[in-house]
Amino acid sequence: MTLTGHSLIAGEPVVGEGKTTNGFNPATNEALEPAYSLLTEEQLKTATAAAKDAFPSFSSLDPETHAAFLEAIADNIEAIGDELITRAGQETGLPAARLQGERARTTGQLRLFAAVVRQGDFRGVRIDPAIPDRTPLPRADIRQRQIPLGPVAVFGASNFPLAFSTAGGDTASALAAGCPVVFKAHNAHPGTSELVGHAVTKAVKDLGLHPGVFSLVYGPGASIGQALVADSAIKAVGFTGSQAAGIALMKTAAARPEPIPVYAEMSSLNPVFVFEGALKGDVDALAAAYVTAVTGSSGQLCTSPGLLFAPEGEAGDKLAAAVGRAVATCAGQTMLTAGIAASWNTGTEALRSAEGVSLIGKGTPGATENAPAPAIFGTGVEHFTSNHVLHEEIFGAASLVIRYRSTEDLLQAAARIEGQLTASLHLTGEDYPTAAPLIPVLEQKVGRIIVNGWPTGVEVGHAMVHGGPFPATSDSRTTSVGTLAINRFLRPVAYQNLPQELLPEPLQDTNPWHLNRRINGNVVPAEEKAEASA
Amino acid sequence: MTLTGHSLIAGEPVVGEGKTTNGFNPATNEALEPAYSLLTEEQLKTATAAAKDAFPSFSSLDPETHAAFLEAIADNIEAIGDELITRAGQETGLPAARLQGERARTTGQLRLFAAVVRQGDFRGVRIDPAIPDRTPLPRADIRQRQIPLGPVAVFGASNFPLAFSTAGGDTASALAAGCPVVFKAHNAHPGTSELVGHAVTKAVKDLGLHPGVFSLVYGPGASIGQALVADSAIKAVGFTGSQAAGIALMKTAAARPEPIPVYAEMSSLNPVFVFEGALKGDVDALAAAYVTAVTGSSGQLCTSPGLLFAPEGEAGDKLAAAVGRAVATCAGQTMLTAGIAASWNTGTEALRSAEGVSLIGKGTPGATENAPAPAIFGTGVEHFTSNHVLHEEIFGAASLVIRYRSTEDLLQAAARIEGQLTASLHLTGEDYPTAAPLIPVLEQKVGRIIVNGWPTGVEVGHAMVHGGPFPATSDSRTTSVGTLAINRFLRPVAYQNLPQELLPEPLQDTNPWHLNRRINGNVVPAEEKAEASA
Repeated sequence: MTLTGHSLIAGEPVVGEGKTTNGFNPATNEALEPAYSLLTEEQLKTATAAAKDAFPSFSSLDPETHAAFLEAIADNIEAIGDELITRAGQETGLPAARLQGERARTTGQLRLFAAVVRQGDFRGVRIDPAIPDRTPLPRADIRQRQIPLGPVAVFGASNFPLAFSTAGGDTASALAAGCPVVFKAHNAHPGTSELVGHAVTKAVKDLGLHPGVFSLVYGPGASIGQALVADSAIKAVGFTGSQAAGIALMKTAAARPEPIPVYAEMSSLNPVFVFEGALKGDVDALAAAYVTAVTGSSGQLCTSPGLLFAPEGEAGDKLAAAVGRAVATCAGQTMLTAGIAASWNTGTEALRSAEGVSLIGKGTPGATENAPAPAIFGTGVEHFTSNHVLHEEIFGAASLVIRYRSTEDLLQAAARIEGQLTASLHLTGEDYPTAAPLIPVLEQKVGRIIVNGWPTGVEVGHAMVHGGPFPATSDSRTTSVGTLAINRFLRPVAYQNLPQELLPEPLQDTNPWHLNRRINGNVVPAEEKAEASA
Repeated sequence: MTLTGHSLIAGEPVVGEGKTTNGFNPATNEALEPAYSLLTEEQLKTATAAAKDAFPSFSSLDPETHAAFLEAIADNIEAIGDELITRAGQETGLPAARLQGERARTTGQLRLFAAVVRQGDFRGVRIDPAIPDRTPLPRADIRQRQIPLGPVAVFGASNFPLAFSTAGGDTASALAAGCPVVFKAHNAHPGTSELVGHAVTKAVKDLGLHPGVFSLVYGPGASIGQALVADSAIKAVGFTGSQAAGIALMKTAAARPEPIPVYAEMSSLNPVFVFEGALKGDVDALAAAYVTAVTGSSGQLCTSPGLLFAPEGEAGDKLAAAVGRAVATCAGQTMLTAGIAASWNTGTEALRSAEGVSLIGKGTPGATENAPAPAIFGTGVEHFTSNHVLHEEIFGAASLVIRYRSTEDLLQAAARIEGQLTASLHLTGEDYPTAAPLIPVLEQKVGRIIVNGWPTGVEVGHAMVHGGPFPATSDSRTTSVGTLAINRFLRPVAYQNLPQELLPEPLQDTNPWHLNRRINGNVVPAEEKAEASA
């Protein structure tokens, strides 16, 4: 496909009247063609107005068309073929195998949400039938369902050009909820965004939906993002990126005449706690797995482990030594952008020069530009609890091994950390009594607890939580991965004493959408129903 | 019971080191004894620290003890007997019958939440079992549950001294979620708050819970409220009151180092739409029912109808005349406070002097202090759409009848109104085609749609939504009445590959809490389970 270099508003290419921007190949620092024209804030309003216009029809779509739409997007993304992987690789430096995996995840989650739309439990149907003879007062028939919030602004993430971008998790869950999406492309991968943008637009057209259901907009980073969040047509925001940018969007959303929810997934150190029992096994394998989790995708995952707590003493020393050996064999991989590589350098320099921090091991720089040598540092728990620099996320292939003396040390360190996406525990049966008290502390700090595994590789399923207390996310009550993500874009409405003729279909007695319904508080299965798994 | 006049922090009376305040009998403007000592912000920290200390044990309580606790509160409130009704009547001017109904609602919702706790669906258990042989990568066992957010600050409402106060809906749902509560009493009914506070404290003691599970605090209105919301131990806020106060709390919560959710239920005009068909029936009865809804509890309900849209023409004229006759028979009832009565006067004066507004009818002043004559005004739809003064809530027994010419008028007016708790439609079968297009518009504006009924008398059930878009509430995704209210105080956590020994009980294979569980996305009922209705 010939890339146009323009926004795609309600199905039509729109030439931005602002400046232009190019993608860059971070492996070479060379600009990629075409240049992308950037919208003005005035032009942006066309997209949000179209989304508002599309809302009434899209929000009341029948489940089958709605699900077919999500599946068509997935099909269309696959139909792009290798061009998508090639372009994404050029724009991000990510290897083809990783991007192929990410594409499968992206289409997989679109199909999963199609299944969710067919199954329909997210519609939250509750019926409290009338009790006309109740005393002292009769009870009216009251029915409840969840309806979509309205048009959603989604921001592309630099580190997942497919799965957290144009048709990624935020877009998929918002569309599944029935919300039109205005998608702000990340300027680091404009071509990848355009390719997927056409895939979505084609699905909108083929299914005969209102064209305003989806727009892809390019604009000057922060300013157009703020304008988008401030736009009165927008009713919720999905964002994955830095803490500074996320907090700026939260402030804009809270200051609107009508405040709206912002779902920002921002930063996480993803601490790993290694217990004594786990060090009686294959310490080299444990060290290698840790280093793989730290260095995979050049460490640019939301869930890359930035901290590993290992006990003091001989076994811990062995682990640290094995980590040093493992990281020494790693070559640097191209980072997403020159700016991200520069931030990584600043961050590791600050960590290296912090009191009590030493280098455990270091790899070699990669052969390309922006491919710094992965580095793992070490320190004692007393430095971690007293120096805030050691709590700063370094986005990229760096991590800090913290040596602890006692369970009390671990409990204190866990209580000290800010909100995180994940915490991982490596242990064996003998460690259960030691580890057990840590779990309720970690529940207050993280969205996901993992045993004998690594936080990277976020499964897209029904039970996943990719979220956590602030500042990991802006809203700990949600997840941005997995089927529960749809709940972010819904709100309940009750209908009291409505005649069948005026009730929305999902609430009618005949249950034409075959929904499971909560009647008097208890779930009553539909006689015929779809299954939730894709 | 002899009232102490002091706060009740973690089970112990605490003498406030600030000034004192008295309740006032609004029927006589006389001060009520005792004086209540107000806490300083420093003293307040004792309560939030105790709530934080109580959280680990309270949040992991077994369902039976947890439910018994809620039931014990209900029993203890009933055990206070007539003293509660008498004191609440003195402090609020509300009639005994209304307060008896409110007490029944308060104890009823505590028992309903006890049933919810026993049934356990709010725990949101989701299990995606491991798939070890999945390719290309195996799937780990992942389980999810909802856990409580942490200590919750609840603010008492002036207009519901029982059902939205000390042990009201916010407190009941927060406690049911497993969140300790620090309750800030409304200074308009301190004695009522203390009576119920002792009832809660006794239940805490009798069940052997950590005393920090509940504290009742008195303080200087706005300042201590802000301090409470800003306190780092507090993780969510429940509030019912004015828009100005609610928005101030929202701002404080958003500006914290760790922002927290505020559930503020603020203001609502509760528009009523009358269609032609409804005017072919008993117009006098319709008018009388409207006037009852407007004047009941002196119009001081969140759901009192402030607007009624009636068609122009003869039938509408008849309705307006009947409304005028009905309101003329009404005597004013004592309002909650002298300040609220003064605001009502200011509000009705502004409405009366607005262009195009005339008086339809007026009652007589009550025999007591602060009992102004109910008043109903009239205007044309063109004035409503052009003058913002006509969109201001007047808290008290006043309402505005708006005459419309066409369905188009109604659609435009509905699109113009701000977020509301409710909208009501009065119609017959012949009006269905006219009314149908209004429903999707109203869904975007309100939390509850009612046909041939009135918004007052909010049923406490599973399907109720007492919420709505801003500024009706701070968060349209929630309800403050009904069992769904518990969701406000929960957040999901995922557990990946945890051994049974380390999994929280609700997630263990043996399902010791007999919970319905969502397995691979589909609900699987527990073999033995509790029912959700009390």
